[in-house]
Amino acid sequence: MVNIASKLSEIVGRVSVSEIRELLKLVEKPGIISLAGGLPDPRLFPREEIAAMVRKVVEEFGEKSLQYAPTRGVGVLLDELKAFMERMGVRVRGDDGLIVTSGSQQALYLVSAALLNPGDYVVVERPTYLAAIGVFRLFGARFIPVDMDKNGMVVEKLEEKLRRAKAEGLPVKMVYTIPTAHNPAGTTMPDDRRKYLLELAEQYDLIVVEDDPYGLIVFENKPFTKLKTLDRSGRVVYLGSFSKILAPGFRLGWAVGLEEIVSAMEKLKQYVDLHSSTLTQYVAAECLKQRIIERSIEVMRMVYREKRDAMLEALEEYMPEGVEWTKPIGGFFVFAWLPEKIDTRKMLRKAVERGVAYVPGYAFYVDGGGHNTMRLNYSFPTVEEIREGVKRLAEVVREEL
Amino acid sequence: MVNIASKLSEIVGRVSVSEIRELLKLVEKPGIISLAGGLPDPRLFPREEIAAMVRKVVEEFGEKSLQYAPTRGVGVLLDELKAFMERMGVRVRGDDGLIVTSGSQQALYLVSAALLNPGDYVVVERPTYLAAIGVFRLFGARFIPVDMDKNGMVVEKLEEKLRRAKAEGLPVKMVYTIPTAHNPAGTTMPDDRRKYLLELAEQYDLIVVEDDPYGLIVFENKPFTKLKTLDRSGRVVYLGSFSKILAPGFRLGWAVGLEEIVSAMEKLKQYVDLHSSTLTQYVAAECLKQRIIERSIEVMRMVYREKRDAMLEALEEYMPEGVEWTKPIGGFFVFAWLPEKIDTRKMLRKAVERGVAYVPGYAFYVDGGGHNTMRLNYSFPTVEEIREGVKRLAEVVREEL
Repeated sequence: MVNIASKLSEIVGRVSVSEIRELLKLVEKPGIISLAGGLPDPRLFPREEIAAMVRKVVEEFGEKSLQYAPTRGVGVLLDELKAFMERMGVRVRGDDGLIVTSGSQQALYLVSAALLNPGDYVVVERPTYLAAIGVFRLFGARFIPVDMDKNGMVVEKLEEKLRRAKAEGLPVKMVYTIPTAHNPAGTTMPDDRRKYLLELAEQYDLIVVEDDPYGLIVFENKPFTKLKTLDRSGRVVYLGSFSKILAPGFRLGWAVGLEEIVSAMEKLKQYVDLHSSTLTQYVAAECLKQRIIERSIEVMRMVYREKRDAMLEALEEYMPEGVEWTKPIGGFFVFAWLPEKIDTRKMLRKAVERGVAYVPGYAFYVDGGGHNTMRLNYSFPTVEEIREGVKRLAEVVREEL
Repeated sequence: MVNIASKLSEIVGRVSVSEIRELLKLVEKPGIISLAGGLPDPRLFPREEIAAMVRKVVEEFGEKSLQYAPTRGVGVLLDELKAFMERMGVRVRGDDGLIVTSGSQQALYLVSAALLNPGDYVVVERPTYLAAIGVFRLFGARFIPVDMDKNGMVVEKLEEKLRRAKAEGLPVKMVYTIPTAHNPAGTTMPDDRRKYLLELAEQYDLIVVEDDPYGLIVFENKPFTKLKTLDRSGRVVYLGSFSKILAPGFRLGWAVGLEEIVSAMEKLKQYVDLHSSTLTQYVAAECLKQRIIERSIEVMRMVYREKRDAMLEALEEYMPEGVEWTKPIGGFFVFAWLPEKIDTRKMLRKAVERGVAYVPGYAFYVDGGGHNTMRLNYSFPTVEEIREGVKRLAEVVREEL
């Protein structure tokens, strides 16, 4: 027999096996209410419209929509995306390029591959998106974690850290941020912070990756400006996703940024998967063209707002003193801080025994920490499940105290 | 303005910009018959069946088929693939794992990421598949090219090279081969060579990557045994593709190999694109289940055989003395050797002026060489275009002589 362990590459060694993923597998049992996931509510997929668009696309453009496609993306989708971003308030610069990716996960992978060398530092929020941590580690990056408060990244702290990093001569390459409806934190940065962040990026010559999967799943009419729109020197790479506004099963996202970066991403994508699914690209283009996405978003906002309200009300009603949580204006998640003495990683087993699951927050911290935090999802469960789940969780927390 | 060039990663530097791709862009002009591409004939996509299956899948399994999916692939497709491979004669071992990938391009990328360290040597055929060369270079691999004859890789030469590499202490990690209906060479290895190749892999402890996108597009009833089926120690990783047997626009392929390798590929895929399109996976599963693929393949074989025959007849009729070519029993390509004095790279411009295009063969050689060779595609053009294209090409060759 072949001895494989000795043959695996160094890269495989850098892949962190997510303990969280393993935990979540345990959770898929009947009777357990999972607040641990991060899935959209599948009842909100515009199924009939999608079925109709697929038929149209296969019948009208069958030869094209089933054939190989350009690595950048099919022309009709690129055009529709440009118009869509304009309607969304994402300002695309004259020197920007646009590329369609296989989910925004791939956009994150490609922009990291295009920019990161082993040993480079990436600024991340504390907490931050789990799979982003994994990608940056894969490319051998190190981290500068920056604390968050209820308005997102505390940019004053970032400035301090950047000053120190510069003094120490550390190679800081980029800032990764989810400014709107943060996963997992549920926060949104106000415009003044966004401007301050970009000033620092200018001053320290950093690339800013603006990850915006929830940018349209926002429930309140406060106008937040995209970092990309505020960008004056071409240093923001904007990542968009169809997973929350249409359907994750399409595996489509996109990236807009300086043409040199997007061109490097394209070259890498040639080898990673050649191009994203032609069929789902054509269907997504039709859904944009016929405003199916914009109409669905209205329904999504309404439903997800109800679910968020249900979760916030239940937390208010059931949680004991000393528990705090974010009040998201959009997205899928509430982030909660329990009293310091509670370890949410240890508490999970008990919670599952009591029929409720969550994600222990430590997983979202690159530097340890977050031992007493948890992420709660409200997009997937029903309003009844949310109420009952939070109730069960509150009982477990009370017992721990 | 940000200075991007200074920020791009080392990996980007390793990406070879394909001169061929640039050349082929020139070729997309009206009036030019392109024998340069590699696309399936889009008239052979089973459009009506696909449209019906998509409707069925969205209506019956809408919530699942539009949702996130497991990184390995959706369960129904994994099951259908196992049954399909059994019908195809690919023997899956008890200790093998199976993963669905975003085209077999991604399978190649992931298996390379899982196994290759910078400086590792990969055995490749001379010539070999262009995008494979690119992937191996991306991971910093070096090459041991092995000559081919009309029966594929000359395994005696491989043995000689492996003996020498061992004496020199070179780290040889794997053999990459397209044993059936080779791209670009158009050759198929007989079983005795396949067995010999595997004996060498045993002796020198190498992984064998069997790339088999054309394994079912075979026109003659000679029974060739898959390397995977001959594998006795779990060292063959088999790569399959839906691009030639269903539709490239689905972006689906798969890999079967020892579970440890597939598990490493899965971990990497989590970060590369999370999973492949759920929608196209469900549709592909239905197409397998209802034997749509097997019925389509019968038509494809008939049509592609006619086209191959047209190309071989035209070559026979028009080409001057001193030109030789392979007689493929399957796949999409004929490979041709012109007299030594002709440089096909230089000749391409003239050919395009005369209204015909091909791929200069040097691009498929990792070590230079192949200056007088060319790849001719017969899958995409019509029979009339093939005849006329070869006629024009023969005129250009005559002028060069």
